[in-house]
Amino acid sequence: MRRAVALAARGLGSTSPNPVVGCVVLDRAGGTVGEGWHQRAGGPHAEVHALAEAGDDARGGTAVVTLEPCSHTGRTGPCTQALVDAGIARVVYAVPDPSPAARGGGDTLAAAGLDTASGLLAAEAAAGNAAWLTAVRRGLPYVTWKYAATLDGRSAAADGTSRWITSEESRADVHRLRAESDAVLVGSGTQLADDPHLAVRGIEGATQPLRVVLDTEARTAPTARVLDGAAPALVAVAEDADATRLAAAAEVVRLPRDGDGRGLELTALLRELYARDVRSVLLEGGPALAGAFLAAGAVDRVIGYLAPVLLGAGPAALGDAGISTIAAALRLTVTETARLGPDLRLTAVPGTASGAPPVAAREAAGTAADTAADTATEAAPEARKENRP
Amino acid sequence: MRRAVALAARGLGSTSPNPVVGCVVLDRAGGTVGEGWHQRAGGPHAEVHALAEAGDDARGGTAVVTLEPCSHTGRTGPCTQALVDAGIARVVYAVPDPSPAARGGGDTLAAAGLDTASGLLAAEAAAGNAAWLTAVRRGLPYVTWKYAATLDGRSAAADGTSRWITSEESRADVHRLRAESDAVLVGSGTQLADDPHLAVRGIEGATQPLRVVLDTEARTAPTARVLDGAAPALVAVAEDADATRLAAAAEVVRLPRDGDGRGLELTALLRELYARDVRSVLLEGGPALAGAFLAAGAVDRVIGYLAPVLLGAGPAALGDAGISTIAAALRLTVTETARLGPDLRLTAVPGTASGAPPVAAREAAGTAADTAADTATEAAPEARKENRP
Repeated sequence: MRRAVALAARGLGSTSPNPVVGCVVLDRAGGTVGEGWHQRAGGPHAEVHALAEAGDDARGGTAVVTLEPCSHTGRTGPCTQALVDAGIARVVYAVPDPSPAARGGGDTLAAAGLDTASGLLAAEAAAGNAAWLTAVRRGLPYVTWKYAATLDGRSAAADGTSRWITSEESRADVHRLRAESDAVLVGSGTQLADDPHLAVRGIEGATQPLRVVLDTEARTAPTARVLDGAAPALVAVAEDADATRLAAAAEVVRLPRDGDGRGLELTALLRELYARDVRSVLLEGGPALAGAFLAAGAVDRVIGYLAPVLLGAGPAALGDAGISTIAAALRLTVTETARLGPDLRLTAVPGTASGAPPVAAREAAGTAADTAADTATEAAPEARKENRP
Repeated sequence: MRRAVALAARGLGSTSPNPVVGCVVLDRAGGTVGEGWHQRAGGPHAEVHALAEAGDDARGGTAVVTLEPCSHTGRTGPCTQALVDAGIARVVYAVPDPSPAARGGGDTLAAAGLDTASGLLAAEAAAGNAAWLTAVRRGLPYVTWKYAATLDGRSAAADGTSRWITSEESRADVHRLRAESDAVLVGSGTQLADDPHLAVRGIEGATQPLRVVLDTEARTAPTARVLDGAAPALVAVAEDADATRLAAAAEVVRLPRDGDGRGLELTALLRELYARDVRSVLLEGGPALAGAFLAAGAVDRVIGYLAPVLLGAGPAALGDAGISTIAAALRLTVTETARLGPDLRLTAVPGTASGAPPVAAREAAGTAADTAADTATEAAPEARKENRP
């Protein structure tokens, strides 16, 4: 199963709206005769790849799969049928499939007379599919907020320069994050200030994420780099915004304004993205947009790139999140730390060991402050300009 | 030698103005027959402790010492003579003694016919004595800036509350840091806002550091907790400040004002502390004082306690350090990271692998902004008040 989890991870970023899945087929004697992973939506599932490699050796053998095999016909046939047809005697899977269409494969296999077991290395397998599982259970994408900052929490110097705060290693890692995400999201403040490109660079064969600009007033220029066609792009504007100029250059989606009318309804935005098969969103900036997402409980994971740098002045990495006193602080749990060149990468999830995760807060999810204040702090490498006029 | 370095570390915080030193005595056959470490200034040196334990077994044996044995008579006699008298045949030390009074012990031993060698585990032994070696070579104390902050670099919430941002484990670790320091330093802003106590708590047998308030205008109240007599305290004021009221309650030292007259000359303060046998200073707050020390190149080490907390508003952990653009950023090298409960402790020193350490900057050392802006950010546990009127 550990091998299957590792195989599954190879699909991260290219299987949306499907999960990542890995499969190892063992023969009667327990030797590995086939391996496979789900590579892209519409392509064969992991089980089909592994069974093809195993051929006749699969007969009477065992299939070890990270996710419950599907029992529905989508763009491909049901994996349960493929397993039965191949003569597999036993299926061991780690995590049950929560999706309404594909669930129930375990029962189907048992009904067909196969020996089935589930739960093996479930936590490990679920972690590899965290974004997809969370998104499918909730019907809204899994959101990762990524930021880069100095040790004193600043994302740029007092004059706005920030090229480079973090190291080359950290910047390369951000491209890996983008490649693993279905969508990358910035606010119009960052868009106007930094004109970021937001596509993945430096990773061969990477699936480009959907580049999304939350641009309430449709202020994005038709010549913006994000609209260059190198990767899909979407501009979300208010229903009443004047987007005539923009609509000629970009795909535009119209969404309701939030309560105070300055931004868009975040839940509406996330629903829209989910409907477009986006299961994971990488929130890249700036501090006001991040603050709005955090205030709405709409962040599932925080990844901070901390550079061993001190500035003492300059914009903060995070803006107003509706927190005015320490008792209301958003507390997280660090799940991983890593050194990236001179920098430190810190991964954390909302909630503490003793406190409940704030998933429920998302139900009342809020609004995105999408204002001009949200500027100059997009930490994506190519987004920076050394000297802005 | 590794054992000697470990023994030496037991003296951290209580040997000032002396270094920490560890010593292991081996008999002719190479077996350990004596161990010792320098426990406090005025008490026996490490060699004397170890030789006493070894007794006659030292004859013809080897003394392994982390620092070159002293050859001068201070409050105790020269260790070189003690080694000769004990019949030691061979002395192996890690680091040469740079202090004008005590240096040259190796030559003295060689002249007396002992086999001497130096340099064994020198880097490791020097690291254990980093503060003392740096201070003695420079004639100014070694300065550690300690701060506590959220992941977005804030030391308190918007309303000033900060109890607690960091965990109990981190706060206990700060007391260890204090116990290892000869002096703890805050500015008058922190003093007035937080009325910190600054003494070591929860560490049995700890030597209390000198508690120092940089208080240019002598605004500290005679009833301040730092003047409670539980540990020595010193208030540094401007030469022309009206300290009549304060002088009755505290030891007051008068120092020249800095260039713009708002603070004190930092180098004068550090010289004064060095003259008072302070070799290591723990700078505990607030952001303006830290900024002034960093701007002056007067920080040798940074220790950050990062709590997995987000606030989005509130005072920054570091104030103006004279840096306005990214090219002038103060770049550090991370030397250690550790998990303390939910928090992360990060240790860093100025300079990068490719860049020169900014020690030279200290020559032009500067001034301490000691203003009312320097408030509300002292992160020491007892310094906080939940609700300040």
